[in-house]
Amino acid sequence: MADSYTLSKEISMNYMTPFSRRLEFTTGKFDKTDLVQTRRLSDLKGLFADQEAEAALMQENPVLYEVFLAFDAPPEHGQLGYSTTVIYPGKVGDEYFMTKGHYHSKGECAELYTCLQGEGYLLMQTREGEVKAIHMTPGVAAYVPPYWGHSTMNVGKENFVFYACYPAEAGYDYGTIAEKGFASIIVERNGRAEVVANPTYK
Amino acid sequence: MADSYTLSKEISMNYMTPFSRRLEFTTGKFDKTDLVQTRRLSDLKGLFADQEAEAALMQENPVLYEVFLAFDAPPEHGQLGYSTTVIYPGKVGDEYFMTKGHYHSKGECAELYTCLQGEGYLLMQTREGEVKAIHMTPGVAAYVPPYWGHSTMNVGKENFVFYACYPAEAGYDYGTIAEKGFASIIVERNGRAEVVANPTYK
Repeated sequence: MADSYTLSKEISMNYMTPFSRRLEFTTGKFDKTDLVQTRRLSDLKGLFADQEAEAALMQENPVLYEVFLAFDAPPEHGQLGYSTTVIYPGKVGDEYFMTKGHYHSKGECAELYTCLQGEGYLLMQTREGEVKAIHMTPGVAAYVPPYWGHSTMNVGKENFVFYACYPAEAGYDYGTIAEKGFASIIVERNGRAEVVANPTYK
Repeated sequence: MADSYTLSKEISMNYMTPFSRRLEFTTGKFDKTDLVQTRRLSDLKGLFADQEAEAALMQENPVLYEVFLAFDAPPEHGQLGYSTTVIYPGKVGDEYFMTKGHYHSKGECAELYTCLQGEGYLLMQTREGEVKAIHMTPGVAAYVPPYWGHSTMNVGKENFVFYACYPAEAGYDYGTIAEKGFASIIVERNGRAEVVANPTYK
């Protein structure tokens, strides 16, 4: 019995300890974050269709969005990362502030986005250029299926906040979108958001 | 070029189509659910410590909780399931209404629980009987790490609602807990919830 108890104790030493974060739904802030990623316009250089507007705004180099990683999970099979993203309101020309956009390095990994606050779009595309846009308002829980690249835009006047959960092993492929862009972009036309073809898509 | 375009189209036919659900945070209801699991006391027969109280309440056989699966994901690597659980307020003797509790068949799979409404506990244990309890109130986003069995209890007076996201391949091992129970239970003592040793734990 003593041996088996010792064995149990040794095994249990390798368990991760359960934990929790407190999430404020309206702001997307956690009481504790493992990592905050702050993305400015310069981090998305070349991604906006209106390059003149982008260059003009580069002097100011505004923060477009922040990602709050509640848990920067080890990139292992079975672990889940979770985070919130806050995209600030604003435009580059007539194109809304957006996230950089990526595919998962492990393409078979899906992701769940739940809108907590504000109004935005979740734009997804396949590597063949098929596009799907989902309008995000609080309560919309959108599924990014395997193999779809994804980016998000704030089309409202307040912060657009969403909550993400993803397999920690998914990884990021930013290169494809940095190089080719998204097939569609979301721009303001006559005061409202419209999904249109990206004139600079390669 | 024509061939490669045809190939791309064929590949794209195999993509899952992105979708979304609308979640009402206060009730945990989705506008569309793939599956609803309704669990009555009889589904948890033998799991409550006070067997006399359980037998007495079995006449009425109340619904203890419901699980609303927004997406009953294919059990494949990389896919994520997401659901809400609503545990109704009530007790069996002095033990709070709870979920059945399970380990994941693929023990390496974690799970994320976010409390949306009400007040409860997330009780976790290792197979060696180490226990960890997290108090859940709205905004608490708790991580069930790999290999921890987990069960939840409503210790409040209103519905306890939480939002779950999990690897779709995780699977359920209900047998271990059905047979051995949880090492701890949560009971009302002097008007408040307390974690105590389970007298019937095997």
